[in-house]
Amino acid sequence: MALIVQKFGGTSVGTVDRIENVADRIGKFRNNGDDVVVVVSAMSGETNRLIELAHSIDEKPEAREYDVLLSTGEQVTIALLSMALNKRGIPARSYTGTQVHILTDSTHNKARILSIEEKKMRSDLQQGRVIVVAGFQGVDEHGNITTLGRGGSDTTAVALAAALKADECQIYTDVDGVYTTDPRVVPEARRLDKITFEEMLEMASLGSKVLQIRAVEFAGKYNVPLRVLSSFDEPYFGGEENDGSNGTLITYEEDEMEQALISGIAFNRDEAKLTILGVPDKPGVAYSILGPIGDSNVEIDMIIQNIGADGTTDFTFTVHRNDFSKAKEVLSKVAEELGAREVVGDDKIVKISLVGVGMRSHAGIASKMFKALAEETININMISTSEIKISVVVDEKYLELGVRTLHSAFGLEENA
Amino acid sequence: MALIVQKFGGTSVGTVDRIENVADRIGKFRNNGDDVVVVVSAMSGETNRLIELAHSIDEKPEAREYDVLLSTGEQVTIALLSMALNKRGIPARSYTGTQVHILTDSTHNKARILSIEEKKMRSDLQQGRVIVVAGFQGVDEHGNITTLGRGGSDTTAVALAAALKADECQIYTDVDGVYTTDPRVVPEARRLDKITFEEMLEMASLGSKVLQIRAVEFAGKYNVPLRVLSSFDEPYFGGEENDGSNGTLITYEEDEMEQALISGIAFNRDEAKLTILGVPDKPGVAYSILGPIGDSNVEIDMIIQNIGADGTTDFTFTVHRNDFSKAKEVLSKVAEELGAREVVGDDKIVKISLVGVGMRSHAGIASKMFKALAEETININMISTSEIKISVVVDEKYLELGVRTLHSAFGLEENA
Repeated sequence: MALIVQKFGGTSVGTVDRIENVADRIGKFRNNGDDVVVVVSAMSGETNRLIELAHSIDEKPEAREYDVLLSTGEQVTIALLSMALNKRGIPARSYTGTQVHILTDSTHNKARILSIEEKKMRSDLQQGRVIVVAGFQGVDEHGNITTLGRGGSDTTAVALAAALKADECQIYTDVDGVYTTDPRVVPEARRLDKITFEEMLEMASLGSKVLQIRAVEFAGKYNVPLRVLSSFDEPYFGGEENDGSNGTLITYEEDEMEQALISGIAFNRDEAKLTILGVPDKPGVAYSILGPIGDSNVEIDMIIQNIGADGTTDFTFTVHRNDFSKAKEVLSKVAEELGAREVVGDDKIVKISLVGVGMRSHAGIASKMFKALAEETININMISTSEIKISVVVDEKYLELGVRTLHSAFGLEENA
Repeated sequence: MALIVQKFGGTSVGTVDRIENVADRIGKFRNNGDDVVVVVSAMSGETNRLIELAHSIDEKPEAREYDVLLSTGEQVTIALLSMALNKRGIPARSYTGTQVHILTDSTHNKARILSIEEKKMRSDLQQGRVIVVAGFQGVDEHGNITTLGRGGSDTTAVALAAALKADECQIYTDVDGVYTTDPRVVPEARRLDKITFEEMLEMASLGSKVLQIRAVEFAGKYNVPLRVLSSFDEPYFGGEENDGSNGTLITYEEDEMEQALISGIAFNRDEAKLTILGVPDKPGVAYSILGPIGDSNVEIDMIIQNIGADGTTDFTFTVHRNDFSKAKEVLSKVAEELGAREVVGDDKIVKISLVGVGMRSHAGIASKMFKALAEETININMISTSEIKISVVVDEKYLELGVRTLHSAFGLEENA
């Protein structure tokens, strides 16, 4: 007897057969007595087909029209899924972003949701209908169609769940939950039953690409319980039993969760670092270095500054590997202007991060981490910490060894 | 300095290259100082692709969702054409049926247009924008997406022209106008510079499938000058010169048009006729014969009743050839019930029609027609007349000879 928002991505609705499977799954939830609101993406491949069409006309297609074009992808899926539901005798009604008035700002191609009109949906739910909403799209105050950017369907689902005060927002994917780390690197990686919003944000932004960061932020802000599940498993109807079909619940910290020191290990392969050595140490130096980098549209990740003894300072930061040469060029000019000694860089580095809310109340996590890495003679290049994570930069070749070592040192394995 | 509504069908926008051509054409009208509102269909093949998707889920897909699905076809085209225009520096803006509020009734799959909100379009036109509207679709009073049925884009164009009081509504097709008859049957067939709405309705319903009947009716009702042109010819910017690019203008009868006795010769290959012989002649007999035929969803075209001398009557009507056996079966049962003598039928007949407003004021057209056919020993099976047309039913084998004979007898050839 719950109200559940379920989101199915492009792979889960990629063919007519899979759409029929999704309809069957929704039918089981209806039989269980649940009210269901469904959010779907475009069928896999469809968005790329539309993008290609646009680019065959204009390399930089007009942003407003690009949204008009791309939004048709989800519209096709909502119609097909609603047909499949109605065929099964499950009354269903599809809605575009415009039709349920998912009001966004006017930033075409990456609009932000401002509000959702839930009156029409409430009335449909009361009449026993399943509601099928097109993900990824909205409408601005002038009636223009907008899109939320890639992966925006997750955000649509969370926003709908927030507006309708749903009991749970279920994100169906091709994995069955969030893992302690990437199982391709550590086969013993364990699926987490629960994780906090904050941890999930750190895991997501650090490269565990199960959920869109914005969707997690949104869910956290409006306190929407978010569950990541596999669209290939049997339906999960609640309860605490860990039978593997319950995925991972992302929620606020609870008492029982305090025991877990570390939730997982995230990593990012696409890092590069740049160091400017011997910069005269005076106020404003950080800005004079990072300002020009930001101006050239390069995003900066970690930043470290060491103050030297001779009145100069060394300044190191990491960027995406694709931006390495561009950033190095900009930095070399800056170094000249500032009278710095030298610019050095390395684009064969990776970042490994321990993530866990337990860090807040437990000392000694960092030293345990450094000790474990030292025992494998893995040299640490950079260290950066936040309240619930510790990140280290190491040479690329140590990625797998480092992740496995930490996974084991913190007892994250399946049967630990 | 005119306001022109231009409609391009699926073939004219069937590829990205053709969409670019349409954009070029619109650019020439803008350079000529005209304001342009464009209506487009789905790219050729796209609607069929969507229909196949729907039918792979349900043979009789839910009507509401079918419209949600099909309407994406035109939405793709409006986005692509607007991109192509913007790329050329021609400011353009696309609108779905919902966005310009083409209000229809709620008859999904074949909705009728009730009204159009032209305020937004007026404002765009004042700002020098080309407006690109999705044909074939609208929205009902509850915000549901509707479609007008196949060919509905013509109707959208006419309705927009009526709402905006446009100077002309131009329908671009793969033919360069309306001909005196099908050039594949009579190579000497001549393109008509002008034709009246009434004549066009008769020509269209009799098988000259250039324009949708509903669009012509709509244009007649709101007195919208309608022009059929080829999307492959050079643009036509007005004026009376007959250089072949001006297509055919469909408009109300004018003085100068009175000279033309006959505008064209329409024909229909797919006819079949059924006769019930020796029916007791009493009131209500027509209904007792045609009622059951109509109940079995067979559409009846021509109807002829002859009263015999012996208190019985013979009753003949024509149906579409596909419905012949079904209608014959129903009619045989009816004959038994009514105590009729016999049912005979022929599914190897065709209908040939003379169409022209000149008939109203000129006698002798019918006898001239019958004489011309008699001279070629073409036997006439049935005759039916209306104010501006005379139709005859003849044996299938006489179709081409009959049409050519009449085309020549009434002087309709290219250089007559």
